[in-house]
Amino acid sequence: MLVPGPGYAITVRVSAPSSASAAGDLAAAVGRAGGVVTAFDVVEASPDRMVMDISANVLSSDHVRHITAALTALPGVDVRKVSDRTFLMHLGGKLEVTPKVSLRNRDDLSRAYTPGVARVCQAIATNPDDARRLTIKRNTVAVVTDGSAVLGLGNLGAAAALPVMEGKAALFKRFAGVDAWPVVLDTQDSEEIIRTVCVIAPAYGGINLEDIAAPRCFEIEARLRDRLDIPVFHDDQHGTAVVVLAALRNALRVVGKSLADCRVVVCGAGAAGSAIIRLMLPEGPGEVIAVDIAGIVHPGRPGLDDNLAWIAAHTNSARLTGTLAKAMVGADVFIGVSAPNLFAEPELMSMAKDAIVFALANPDPEVDPLLAQQHAAVVATGRSDYPNQINNVLIFPGVFRGLLDAHARNVTDQMLRAAAAAVAAVVTDPNPSFIVPSVFDPTVATAVASAVRDAAR
Amino acid sequence: MLVPGPGYAITVRVSAPSSASAAGDLAAAVGRAGGVVTAFDVVEASPDRMVMDISANVLSSDHVRHITAALTALPGVDVRKVSDRTFLMHLGGKLEVTPKVSLRNRDDLSRAYTPGVARVCQAIATNPDDARRLTIKRNTVAVVTDGSAVLGLGNLGAAAALPVMEGKAALFKRFAGVDAWPVVLDTQDSEEIIRTVCVIAPAYGGINLEDIAAPRCFEIEARLRDRLDIPVFHDDQHGTAVVVLAALRNALRVVGKSLADCRVVVCGAGAAGSAIIRLMLPEGPGEVIAVDIAGIVHPGRPGLDDNLAWIAAHTNSARLTGTLAKAMVGADVFIGVSAPNLFAEPELMSMAKDAIVFALANPDPEVDPLLAQQHAAVVATGRSDYPNQINNVLIFPGVFRGLLDAHARNVTDQMLRAAAAAVAAVVTDPNPSFIVPSVFDPTVATAVASAVRDAAR
Repeated sequence: MLVPGPGYAITVRVSAPSSASAAGDLAAAVGRAGGVVTAFDVVEASPDRMVMDISANVLSSDHVRHITAALTALPGVDVRKVSDRTFLMHLGGKLEVTPKVSLRNRDDLSRAYTPGVARVCQAIATNPDDARRLTIKRNTVAVVTDGSAVLGLGNLGAAAALPVMEGKAALFKRFAGVDAWPVVLDTQDSEEIIRTVCVIAPAYGGINLEDIAAPRCFEIEARLRDRLDIPVFHDDQHGTAVVVLAALRNALRVVGKSLADCRVVVCGAGAAGSAIIRLMLPEGPGEVIAVDIAGIVHPGRPGLDDNLAWIAAHTNSARLTGTLAKAMVGADVFIGVSAPNLFAEPELMSMAKDAIVFALANPDPEVDPLLAQQHAAVVATGRSDYPNQINNVLIFPGVFRGLLDAHARNVTDQMLRAAAAAVAAVVTDPNPSFIVPSVFDPTVATAVASAVRDAAR
Repeated sequence: MLVPGPGYAITVRVSAPSSASAAGDLAAAVGRAGGVVTAFDVVEASPDRMVMDISANVLSSDHVRHITAALTALPGVDVRKVSDRTFLMHLGGKLEVTPKVSLRNRDDLSRAYTPGVARVCQAIATNPDDARRLTIKRNTVAVVTDGSAVLGLGNLGAAAALPVMEGKAALFKRFAGVDAWPVVLDTQDSEEIIRTVCVIAPAYGGINLEDIAAPRCFEIEARLRDRLDIPVFHDDQHGTAVVVLAALRNALRVVGKSLADCRVVVCGAGAAGSAIIRLMLPEGPGEVIAVDIAGIVHPGRPGLDDNLAWIAAHTNSARLTGTLAKAMVGADVFIGVSAPNLFAEPELMSMAKDAIVFALANPDPEVDPLLAQQHAAVVATGRSDYPNQINNVLIFPGVFRGLLDAHARNVTDQMLRAAAAAVAAVVTDPNPSFIVPSVFDPTVATAVASAVRDAAR
């Protein structure tokens, strides 16, 4: 099932004897070794030798060694250098801070800096809300993490989380013109995280929490929402919940079911799963069953924390107990935000007719998507190499665009549900392979922003 | 003495009866009212009326009212709108965050964000120092303030300090390609400031402290230097000290004196004055006398804090006591970083022959610069409308360029002295009106960076 993707792309510089077949021989060798060749450039050529750059997608560093060995095994071929294109792209970081004002001469300096700036400072001191008009606060979001749950990699700490936060900030700008800045915190103490975010908040018009481990993330978010006069959004919770709701809305259109008649299994009760349940419940699903690593969540289960206790009290009205397999019997919808390879054909076959399966664990879904497609009516994953990629990039840029434009002081579930409806509505005619728009569809962020702005006003 | 400068510039839109003399009449009216006309544009013209934009530098909001009244008093003239160009320039803030990588398609996303970014995170988790290579830390400085001493305006707080920090960040980029980010702290508790800066430090390659009140700034800086593995520079102290030392070096060349033979009065013993004294002492001045609001600093003076006690112990070997006027008798050099209009002709006349006067209080110097020019051999101020503007912009961009390039973990007095020498050396042939280079001289930041880099290695 593993196919090399563009996330691990290398360029190999090789020197080989000149011949009409050299290019083909080299490309074929890379292909036989499992690399996906994406580009081929001759760098220099003399009558006896050629130097070529071969770019390819690969799987792992072991795979790179395997490919270079295959090249070196060809007669007269030397591998001069292997470059990792992902690392090259990251050299020096992915963001820069650019002045929006020109600083060509003393007059410019006098206005952008001293002495002119003093009047702007005084205006804000007199009317603090002017900061939303006269400073970067107008358009700037902090992307905050403690590095405790970086992607699927776990607790890597602040510095190692920085490339993700930079990438997120780049997406904010690319998709919605929002200026976002990485704030990576060298602490994993909740009190200190809360206090630090409050202390640095004056420069920001919003806070996007990111990759903070559950259940800590719930308290941090709730208390920050309480204390700050700017919106606080935890993308792992709310971004995921909104995009799942949008996709579900269209999947239900495809199968012709109503949420009120559906039995929904949510597998994973961490940040994402909990938020999906909380955002979905007011829309009146027929039944929701939450399942986590310890099985079905029900009020009698020992050791429930505050979050799980709330979920137990508000779902599973039949007080079902047991395993995921048991929960899935007769389910209309499976939403997985959990772990790879949790079930297979028997569970798929036990679901209701025209089932919907969202297997969102990354990079390896809860069930093989090809298998799921044989049994379910609609299948979605978090991956870009299958149809229906459920991706938060559809949500967070537009949500913050709308919040900033509305000068919103908080973010409400009503705004989030409006955002979900807006994303769903971008797809006018959904079908089993097309329930969410492409992340590159330029109308998405605009539609989301406009829905959030309207809900905020 | 007050002349309108570009820091307060307005554009007035007026409608007036069409006539050959309309433009001249309007400009003359603004001029008579004390405005300095900088531009004149006809926006629309019909046979009977014209609409014009008149841009002018002004002094104050009262002055604006005076000018608009003068215009309205002209026959048939209406003032339609008055725009403040400084505020217009600040709308929406002065900085943006721009991706350095292209995000055109799914392959780009796969490398800049998930899944490719995961390998970069893991590389940093394994070798934390890779953050200086693979993230924004490589080129990024935090511009940190608590808003307690904003310009000369005092304690305005975090939000009102933001326009200054944005301006500073813009200068960092403009003059040395450094990415700088405003960090405005909603606290004025030293412990909390120190802790917050440590918590957010992983994303930064250096910390520039700014506009933090003395004496708190000394402890904050010292303890941050102790705790962090990146350089900490307090521009109000070190930037000012370096540029003053550079200017003094060239002023001494002009008058043909050696620092060892000079009696130096430093007026102001806050952040700037203290740092000037500390950086100057190892260069062996003949004598240094520090003066603050309570008079000459000497060991017998009651109520000295740690900083003043250190200064008292290391200056004023003759144990002089009394007023500024007394300190200035026979002084070769006066360096003022204090308050407006502290002295006049008698004190100037009491100084040694070929005296040097740096009156750096802003916007109004310690002594009238025109008066000082009549008595001293070299006069410098902090203002752009007199010769010899002593401006930190000559220092901080190049210092951090050098520190970042050297991957420096701290900043030393040796680096700072090297920076001062480098700035002085840019002026090959100093004269009484030219002891420091222009802030727009593109060789300055390069020379400073190179000196700091060499000193760091």
